[in-house]
Amino acid sequence: MTEPFDAVEVIAAKRDGHALDTDRIRWLVDAYTRGVVADEQMSAWAMAVLLNGMDRREIRDLTLAMIDSGERMSFAGLGKPTVDKHSTGGVGDKITLPLAPLVAAFGVAVPQLSGRGLGHTGGTLDKLESIPGWRADLSPGALRAQLADVGAAICAAGADLAPADKRLYALRDTTGTVEAIPLIASSIMSKKIAEGTSSLVLDVKFGSGAFLPQRERAEELARTMVELGGDAGVTTVALLTDMAVPLGRAIGNAVEVAESVEVLAGGGPADVRELTVALAREMLALAGRPDADVEAALDDGRAMDAWRRMIRAQGGDPDAPLPVGREAHVVVAEADGVLVEQDARAVGVAAWRLGAGRARQGDPVQHGAGILLHAKPGDAVRAGEPLAVLRTEEADRIPRALEALEGAMTIAPAGTPVPSRPIVAARIA
Amino acid sequence: MTEPFDAVEVIAAKRDGHALDTDRIRWLVDAYTRGVVADEQMSAWAMAVLLNGMDRREIRDLTLAMIDSGERMSFAGLGKPTVDKHSTGGVGDKITLPLAPLVAAFGVAVPQLSGRGLGHTGGTLDKLESIPGWRADLSPGALRAQLADVGAAICAAGADLAPADKRLYALRDTTGTVEAIPLIASSIMSKKIAEGTSSLVLDVKFGSGAFLPQRERAEELARTMVELGGDAGVTTVALLTDMAVPLGRAIGNAVEVAESVEVLAGGGPADVRELTVALAREMLALAGRPDADVEAALDDGRAMDAWRRMIRAQGGDPDAPLPVGREAHVVVAEADGVLVEQDARAVGVAAWRLGAGRARQGDPVQHGAGILLHAKPGDAVRAGEPLAVLRTEEADRIPRALEALEGAMTIAPAGTPVPSRPIVAARIA
Repeated sequence: MTEPFDAVEVIAAKRDGHALDTDRIRWLVDAYTRGVVADEQMSAWAMAVLLNGMDRREIRDLTLAMIDSGERMSFAGLGKPTVDKHSTGGVGDKITLPLAPLVAAFGVAVPQLSGRGLGHTGGTLDKLESIPGWRADLSPGALRAQLADVGAAICAAGADLAPADKRLYALRDTTGTVEAIPLIASSIMSKKIAEGTSSLVLDVKFGSGAFLPQRERAEELARTMVELGGDAGVTTVALLTDMAVPLGRAIGNAVEVAESVEVLAGGGPADVRELTVALAREMLALAGRPDADVEAALDDGRAMDAWRRMIRAQGGDPDAPLPVGREAHVVVAEADGVLVEQDARAVGVAAWRLGAGRARQGDPVQHGAGILLHAKPGDAVRAGEPLAVLRTEEADRIPRALEALEGAMTIAPAGTPVPSRPIVAARIA
Repeated sequence: MTEPFDAVEVIAAKRDGHALDTDRIRWLVDAYTRGVVADEQMSAWAMAVLLNGMDRREIRDLTLAMIDSGERMSFAGLGKPTVDKHSTGGVGDKITLPLAPLVAAFGVAVPQLSGRGLGHTGGTLDKLESIPGWRADLSPGALRAQLADVGAAICAAGADLAPADKRLYALRDTTGTVEAIPLIASSIMSKKIAEGTSSLVLDVKFGSGAFLPQRERAEELARTMVELGGDAGVTTVALLTDMAVPLGRAIGNAVEVAESVEVLAGGGPADVRELTVALAREMLALAGRPDADVEAALDDGRAMDAWRRMIRAQGGDPDAPLPVGREAHVVVAEADGVLVEQDARAVGVAAWRLGAGRARQGDPVQHGAGILLHAKPGDAVRAGEPLAVLRTEEADRIPRALEALEGAMTIAPAGTPVPSRPIVAARIA
């Protein structure tokens, strides 16, 4: 087969700062999927995109080309609106767990196709797999039936959804080209659009525990994705949220499930409840239910009912005890005072080193590994009292986790003011 | 083996505009040679270098690392000074052929380790292989003996000379990362320094037929290489020369040998003689012979004697007839007037399409293919008289060669002034 374009010419155009036309972008993605464009060509192109950018039309073309590399799903005919949510990932970010059943409790379908974790931010599927019996894999038919019946489903994305993105993502991971906004935006949105949702709420994080720590960059990503969603016919709203400190008190797998259940029972840490409620309101507004009383559904057990049905539908036992790492280490405060800082990234890396996350794709995770924070910024602390409890199956992981935590939690004299930071910093629509 | 650095971290540092330290540069080249750093990582790094640059120390470190990936040669003990020349390549650039024997005629050793052509600029070895019996491969011992005896040798570089550069060069060729000055400079200079010459003259070209057409970019490359040579203990001088029009009247393989022999016989086109003489003066000055009467050696047969001995030493017959492509096509002037333009790149591409060059490494070339120009800019021309004669073994190559020539030769009314352009535009030392 004669190729209509030359890979070197396409790479050089982006390298020289030119916009690529639709035909060239579609060809590049297709030729990469067919193996005609090699990994070393695609990574050079990705670096040129990272450094020279792409305009709105190019990003849309790239996204559509990645969607067309695989199959599209459709949830038409369910008899209820569908709305999806995506988070760019953070430390202690278990929000999908209480959020999906909460929104489903209002008769909305929430198809949450999720991933496994890599690096210091955990994966939603890894967390749910702590629940005895729960299975991440659902056939398209089973997913559809569960959405019709329960309303909420959190499951693994099939291999047929944007396969070009899967390959490009793995390549970016090893070539220093992850942090390109056009590539991040098209990667996220190609999967969400291919999934067939009619509307989408994005949780785009900034701060040390986020993928893009700088607020300006996170905001640019949010805006790019909102535009992209609109251009592709998926109404999209983004909340820009603070990830300077971990979300909630639990960081790991089973511990995050337990904290999610607390929120579904009307309790849980204030920040987790606040963000869950804020995202639920956005999702329900997009689904045509702007007046839904979200807080009531958390407080009166409707959200919990939906959770239990969702877990059972995927083989899980919502009443089974959750695993707890057998080795524990208590980090204590070294002085009296007030906790003024708790670095999200450091806490995330520590939990990862305890075994909650994986270093390489395909590695197992420890479901009982993780961290429970006993104090949050603004809390008074006393010398010798616990700041955090670390859990793992292997005691020899503890020293490296402690290394990561060094300097991550700062205590100031009592009375030092700790400015409260709003979780939701901005709304972009 | 545990690696001291992580490829992604090294790529990301260059991507983010930082200078890489010596240890990281040496590790990167070594790990790439060992296969620990993959092609897709190296190409992403090369693109980051292209777009973000390298400082003088980094370029030196990269050059030394590439030298250390292979063996170093040494011409110490020959009993005469050695001086080498490198051209960045151009259309009709056969200067090495008359230059090496001319300089050798003054008792200086000229080890010219050369390459084969790829693309529209020809290769010195391809040209010399038009001579019946001539062989490009010399063992290190044979090269040394020939330098001691004849003084001049033009031969293929061995595989052990800077092997990391060979691999990186092939990778750059397919990934749009050829045009990075730090990578061009280190590629050229690593081979020249590993070769063990004590001084070096560079012919850095600009204009449409050159690798880097912009004069400013060519000048930057020249300056980078002169500094690099100095830093590595090889006295280096560069001439910045004009490649807007082809050098001489012959473009191809055998035709360029024939033109070189004309120059060695004291004749030949003025521009070829002028550049040969200018480069020979620079080389002889570096070899301690600033007063050598270069022109006399061309006119009195000493340079020709050295040429005949050099060709014979490598099995060639300097008196054998040279091949001529059996198919000929004459391009005639369409009007009376004066030739004001003759685009080097277009002429180079036309000769390449006639079969003088190769599209892929390892392809054969046609020794008899090429172009003989009957007019040069400034010459008066008459409608219907020849502007150029094209030669090839295959008539079906002619139409595509003529396509390349379209608009490349411009005739203006008689009397239109044609500013003469000096061949040597600047000297950088």
